[in-house]
Amino acid sequence: MSSKPYIRLDKNDVAVLLVDHQAGLLSLVRDIDPDKFKNNVLALADMAKYFKLPTVLTTSFETGPNGPLVPELKEMFPDAPYIARPGNINAWDNEDFVKAVKATGKKQLLIAGVVTEVCVAFPALSAIEEGFEVFVVTDASGTFNEITRLAAWDRMSQAGVQLMTWFGAACELHRDWRNDIEGLATLFSNHIPDYRNLMTSYDKLANK
Amino acid sequence: MSSKPYIRLDKNDVAVLLVDHQAGLLSLVRDIDPDKFKNNVLALADMAKYFKLPTVLTTSFETGPNGPLVPELKEMFPDAPYIARPGNINAWDNEDFVKAVKATGKKQLLIAGVVTEVCVAFPALSAIEEGFEVFVVTDASGTFNEITRLAAWDRMSQAGVQLMTWFGAACELHRDWRNDIEGLATLFSNHIPDYRNLMTSYDKLANK
Amino acid sequence: MSSKPYIRLDKNDVAVLLVDHQAGLLSLVRDIDPDKFKNNVLALADMAKYFKLPTVLTTSFETGPNGPLVPELKEMFPDAPYIARPGNINAWDNEDFVKAVKATGKKQLLIAGVVTEVCVAFPALSAIEEGFEVFVVTDASGTFNEITRLAAWDRMSQAGVQLMTWFGAACELHRDWRNDIEGLATLFSNHIPDYRNLMTSYDKLANK
Amino acid sequence: MSSKPYIRLDKNDVAVLLVDHQAGLLSLVRDIDPDKFKNNVLALADMAKYFKLPTVLTTSFETGPNGPLVPELKEMFPDAPYIARPGNINAWDNEDFVKAVKATGKKQLLIAGVVTEVCVAFPALSAIEEGFEVFVVTDASGTFNEITRLAAWDRMSQAGVQLMTWFGAACELHRDWRNDIEGLATLFSNHIPDYRNLMTSYDKLANK
Amino acid sequence: MSSKPYIRLDKNDVAVLLVDHQAGLLSLVRDIDPDKFKNNVLALADMAKYFKLPTVLTTSFETGPNGPLVPELKEMFPDAPYIARPGNINAWDNEDFVKAVKATGKKQLLIAGVVTEVCVAFPALSAIEEGFEVFVVTDASGTFNEITRLAAWDRMSQAGVQLMTWFGAACELHRDWRNDIEGLATLFSNHIPDYRNLMTSYDKLANK
Amino acid sequence: MSSKPYIRLDKNDVAVLLVDHQAGLLSLVRDIDPDKFKNNVLALADMAKYFKLPTVLTTSFETGPNGPLVPELKEMFPDAPYIARPGNINAWDNEDFVKAVKATGKKQLLIAGVVTEVCVAFPALSAIEEGFEVFVVTDASGTFNEITRLAAWDRMSQAGVQLMTWFGAACELHRDWRNDIEGLATLFSNHIPDYRNLMTSYDKLANK
Amino acid sequence: MSSKPYIRLDKNDVAVLLVDHQAGLLSLVRDIDPDKFKNNVLALADMAKYFKLPTVLTTSFETGPNGPLVPELKEMFPDAPYIARPGNINAWDNEDFVKAVKATGKKQLLIAGVVTEVCVAFPALSAIEEGFEVFVVTDASGTFNEITRLAAWDRMSQAGVQLMTWFGAACELHRDWRNDIEGLATLFSNHIPDYRNLMTSYDKLANK
Amino acid sequence: MSSKPYIRLDKNDVAVLLVDHQAGLLSLVRDIDPDKFKNNVLALADMAKYFKLPTVLTTSFETGPNGPLVPELKEMFPDAPYIARPGNINAWDNEDFVKAVKATGKKQLLIAGVVTEVCVAFPALSAIEEGFEVFVVTDASGTFNEITRLAAWDRMSQAGVQLMTWFGAACELHRDWRNDIEGLATLFSNHIPDYRNLMTSYDKLANK
Repeated sequence: MSSKPYIRLDKNDVAVLLVDHQAGLLSLVRDIDPDKFKNNVLALADMAKYFKLPTVLTTSFETGPNGPLVPELKEMFPDAPYIARPGNINAWDNEDFVKAVKATGKKQLLIAGVVTEVCVAFPALSAIEEGFEVFVVTDASGTFNEITRLAAWDRMSQAGVQLMTWFGAACELHRDWRNDIEGLATLFSNHIPDYRNLMTSYDKLANK
Repeated sequence: MSSKPYIRLDKNDVAVLLVDHQAGLLSLVRDIDPDKFKNNVLALADMAKYFKLPTVLTTSFETGPNGPLVPELKEMFPDAPYIARPGNINAWDNEDFVKAVKATGKKQLLIAGVVTEVCVAFPALSAIEEGFEVFVVTDASGTFNEITRLAAWDRMSQAGVQLMTWFGAACELHRDWRNDIEGLATLFSNHIPDYRNLMTSYDKLANK
Repeated sequence: MSSKPYIRLDKNDVAVLLVDHQAGLLSLVRDIDPDKFKNNVLALADMAKYFKLPTVLTTSFETGPNGPLVPELKEMFPDAPYIARPGNINAWDNEDFVKAVKATGKKQLLIAGVVTEVCVAFPALSAIEEGFEVFVVTDASGTFNEITRLAAWDRMSQAGVQLMTWFGAACELHRDWRNDIEGLATLFSNHIPDYRNLMTSYDKLANK
Repeated sequence: MSSKPYIRLDKNDVAVLLVDHQAGLLSLVRDIDPDKFKNNVLALADMAKYFKLPTVLTTSFETGPNGPLVPELKEMFPDAPYIARPGNINAWDNEDFVKAVKATGKKQLLIAGVVTEVCVAFPALSAIEEGFEVFVVTDASGTFNEITRLAAWDRMSQAGVQLMTWFGAACELHRDWRNDIEGLATLFSNHIPDYRNLMTSYDKLANK
Repeated sequence: MSSKPYIRLDKNDVAVLLVDHQAGLLSLVRDIDPDKFKNNVLALADMAKYFKLPTVLTTSFETGPNGPLVPELKEMFPDAPYIARPGNINAWDNEDFVKAVKATGKKQLLIAGVVTEVCVAFPALSAIEEGFEVFVVTDASGTFNEITRLAAWDRMSQAGVQLMTWFGAACELHRDWRNDIEGLATLFSNHIPDYRNLMTSYDKLANK
Repeated sequence: MSSKPYIRLDKNDVAVLLVDHQAGLLSLVRDIDPDKFKNNVLALADMAKYFKLPTVLTTSFETGPNGPLVPELKEMFPDAPYIARPGNINAWDNEDFVKAVKATGKKQLLIAGVVTEVCVAFPALSAIEEGFEVFVVTDASGTFNEITRLAAWDRMSQAGVQLMTWFGAACELHRDWRNDIEGLATLFSNHIPDYRNLMTSYDKLANK
Repeated sequence: MSSKPYIRLDKNDVAVLLVDHQAGLLSLVRDIDPDKFKNNVLALADMAKYFKLPTVLTTSFETGPNGPLVPELKEMFPDAPYIARPGNINAWDNEDFVKAVKATGKKQLLIAGVVTEVCVAFPALSAIEEGFEVFVVTDASGTFNEITRLAAWDRMSQAGVQLMTWFGAACELHRDWRNDIEGLATLFSNHIPDYRNLMTSYDKLANK
Repeated sequence: MSSKPYIRLDKNDVAVLLVDHQAGLLSLVRDIDPDKFKNNVLALADMAKYFKLPTVLTTSFETGPNGPLVPELKEMFPDAPYIARPGNINAWDNEDFVKAVKATGKKQLLIAGVVTEVCVAFPALSAIEEGFEVFVVTDASGTFNEITRLAAWDRMSQAGVQLMTWFGAACELHRDWRNDIEGLATLFSNHIPDYRNLMTSYDKLANK
């Protein structure tokens, strides 16, 4: 077993791409329960804000049935580049999108979107081809069912994409609780009910 | 098939009992995903407030490992009777609790709690015995696993408890959208992501 | 074990009630896969037409996010009573709906709708109270998840509702293949892929 | 809790009805894995033979796509009444079938068939109405999916049918191992791999 | 909805029947994971000891492949009546067993065993017939699969058996934490890892 | 992480191979629900037609129990090469088939069939060996159960096959909605009920 | 995507290794239902006999609780090398076993056993290291649960093992139905109930 | 298929790293049932002790809500290096931890922890980078759900980590039952109920 470099998320090197989390398209997502999926997407967005990661928003054909970007994301990133693609299905086929990504100056991309095998996999594979280090946030990406998810994962993984989750990404970015205990704890408390409960019980006792 | 009266929730006749939603006990709940369960409990609480239903809070041994009531519930019902039971496992064995319930003057009880087969089933069965009409909010009640849930449901159902969910209860209480379209829509939008998405898409188009 | 009368569907005594199969509400249905659910609803509709059962259509607040009735149902029953309820959540609370049901002159009601614990259970329980024999088509009725479905089933079953499926109902209505072999076979072929395959193989061999 | 008589299978009072286990119809069964289902049906048949229970075979429209009775059953019961129904879906609507059942002179009926909500439930409900004690062998009865199975179970159970499985029925019929240890052990060894393995290990050690 | 008496477990009125938890038969149990099932059975046994409930042990044909009673149970109840049934499948068909049960002088029976639809259901139904109040500990009773479990539950429930779990039973017996906090906490800590973890965290903080 | 070329479907370079979707063989497919599977296969066929992809049909031993090709596919591709293999299990072992494939002049193959680990995997692995770029449409390929599916996926993926789904393939082929909005929308509307509902609601509002 | 040779099973190059299918160890297998697993193992054995593949049997510590080899396998391969390993857990650590394998003169090994991550994975990895082409029959290999199975698959796959199933292996070995239609059909009929049913229906019609 | 060396666990070369099995963090683990997970962790610990493998314990921020190390582990390894990390999330970022690992002088690391994608995956990837042979004990490592587990497995597997389970590791370490039959049997009997039952039945018969 030869050694292999551990390419890990570095908060100075990461841009976040949120692809097609649109009100209509979300009704297609059936591989993750809607309560959980909503929470995961908002957790990822909170994480991006918390680490001040440059974030690029994009939508596909949002004036049609795909619907508008979910309002929470728009509100959280008022100044982020927002590319409403008029037709390109693969966001990477859209020049403005690629420009916006490259303008971040980052070489690591953290991608999530709807649906996984299209809106996530296509730009992920394109970005790999261009030499980016690509990490997909699997649990903030949704699709029709487990078969479509696992097939998409396999295709991306074979191409070199690293499969992550929002919690794993947050931990890899933060590195050390001492960098900011309260900030990370708040992020977790807001999006992991079990963690919030631990903190509630802890606070009661610690402050007694 | 003989006719059978339809005993339905009447917002003028209902009291809500929230039993033992405590930070520690919640870690025991594994029959519903924590993101979803948290949402269901808060949805029930929002519903109780929205319909101005008298609500009784109670906890079991909250100074020990069971932990404090989850803070959101305390904050939402600052003036509700709050019975911190020193030891009675069945809330109905606690005189103060029964007094608080009876003081609401309601004959229909909507009960939810943790864990289903104990904190919910015991007072539900006691209340049936005393002639109350009892409705259990199954999806805001949690327990160890599916076996414990289904066994508890069967015991309660055989005794005459009606098994409901928070959404069903809200609809039965509201009766008619025209009573307050916006209020009910807000309740649903806040707790049903799929409904929220429908509204987002609708609003965009309706207001174009 | 005492004998109990078998109250069975009689095609001369049955009316079909299709409640709130609306384009928006359908995105809430997550206890049955969408391909299967669509098939089940259309199968029930085809069955109603095939047996010439009087059918009543109704929708809830269809000008809002709940969306319009799915077009296929409108097209299949152009002359059926169609009650677009302006606000009543329980269709039975709407006088026009009840009138339309009673105008059919039938005493057996076959009900399906979205969502099960509300749009189906409420009118089912109301109709039981008025002495109708009520049969719910469980697999043409959808809801949020298994917990909401099973709780709704229990409530309806305890009240005397008979839980059916579209295939069971079709068989109970038809009674004897000899009444019309081709008609029933076509209904099954169009909605049960496994049956269709049996027929395909059979026809090839039988006609060789 | 008042006492309730325990109506149990008595091998002197039982007839077995095998309804529509036909080669074509079996492809509709998807609520039980085919290896397991085949085993369960053959186990029930072996059990009927072992206890010398009068058995009635029937099929529905076997010259069409429903296909012939599975050959194993025909071979195991060469002398059993065999009613190839020309069209009646409910076997109990067929006079010859009812005559054959009544000719057994038994008052307890053990029924299994394909599919559960039709070929099993319809004659089960008819037989209840006529005062028979009806036991359904749930695991030798198959249907489309879990929803159709559970709805059928509920309908039958509410009418007074007792839900059994082949193993439970065998044990209730046998009453005491001492009546014939080897016979019952052989039945179990042939149809319960875990039991067979226990016996294999036991025999090796006991005979060493 | 008429009132219905709540028949609850009373530690002065309960006997525990442990039926056929034998080393061989346990390999048949596949509806509950073996780690969990072993824990549930031992938890029930600990509970019986903790509440000093008279306990009756019985086995079926233990010199054959069914195997010996699991040693832990023998060791925990060295003085309990132990009826090694030579052949009766329904323990209630064995006179010594019934005598032992009646000798406890209790009218409430808490029954668990392997397998659910036979070793538990048969004596449960017999005891109901004789006027006992019967409670089945569903999660300390195991069987082949979910179908066999649910069918057995339905049969028992329709006859008046109350479906419980070991935790629910322990809570109903104890009534009030103040009767013995440490004793009950120890029982839970030994058999509910989540509870144990709560206590570990609590103790660390409370004693700091 | 080195860059890796993104080999994507190009509608000018793709041939579609539909292998053994025969009426008999389809009864073997139990890893995908039959309603869904039928829809997926027809969606893939519609897609092939929509993009005018050269399509090759083949069957295995269709005069025997495997049964005829499902009639819909024959009707949709009346002029496609149709190789009824007299015996070769791996279609690639049949010279006519390989000739037909090569005659398309395409270097990318999109393969689906029944059953996945045989009729799909064998020609996929053969085609890889000959230098084709191979994409398997996983959700239009069916097999016995999840174990057989996942084992087949692993074998194909390790050999370089890209695992796709019909929706992902359609999106990758189309590239840009502006190429033909209505055409793609119709394809999706006909095979994705959730998408159809979005369009229904959208059209109602957009055209008001 | 570079071409990659398709290493396929060749009936002239294959030896079958059946590792530790012992009566005791089989009770550990819980990732596949016992009826199905038994069928899969016997199907693999029948296949080995049908293709006259040299077969090696081995057991681990069979005089202890692991129990004897299941008798069916012994009877089917009376002349096969049978290595009762006195202690080596990895069969490949046993010289006699390796000698027996090498004595077959085959370079392709088809391995199945209990439990997957040990009795199968260890010799599979050893054989890969020695240059054999290794194919594991996943569905005739069993283990504790899905986690243990998937971890074992991943380890073997990464090392170059090809994951197969008994049906896939049979098809790859047979190559062409015309080599012997009846023989292969009998194998499938005996072990695939759905295939058997197809043949039953076919024969009835074809011979009418 | 080229040969590939089989890198297997060698008890002289292995160190065990137990990462963050803390009372609070354990409430986050929901991909494995708590009874089973507790058993797996203790089994791994027993195994480490049994093989006298140098073991390193570490915790993350144990004075906060993450809670203390579960007491059983502390008690089992009183003399093991214990690194209570003040903040590093990746244990490998902590110098003391790495020193302790390197001080063992082993080149194979067997890692388990909570949660899998963070506390296990991060140090596993770091150790791979430094040239260690890394084996993850998947079933003694827990996380939020199946998606997070499978994503973590894929990331680790692609980097060269070998995915194991405690039972597989124990067998690979032991090599030959004859090294110590009783020791290994005791380990298995204490943590595998099915194995324990085999031994119980065996002992009864063997000693008769």
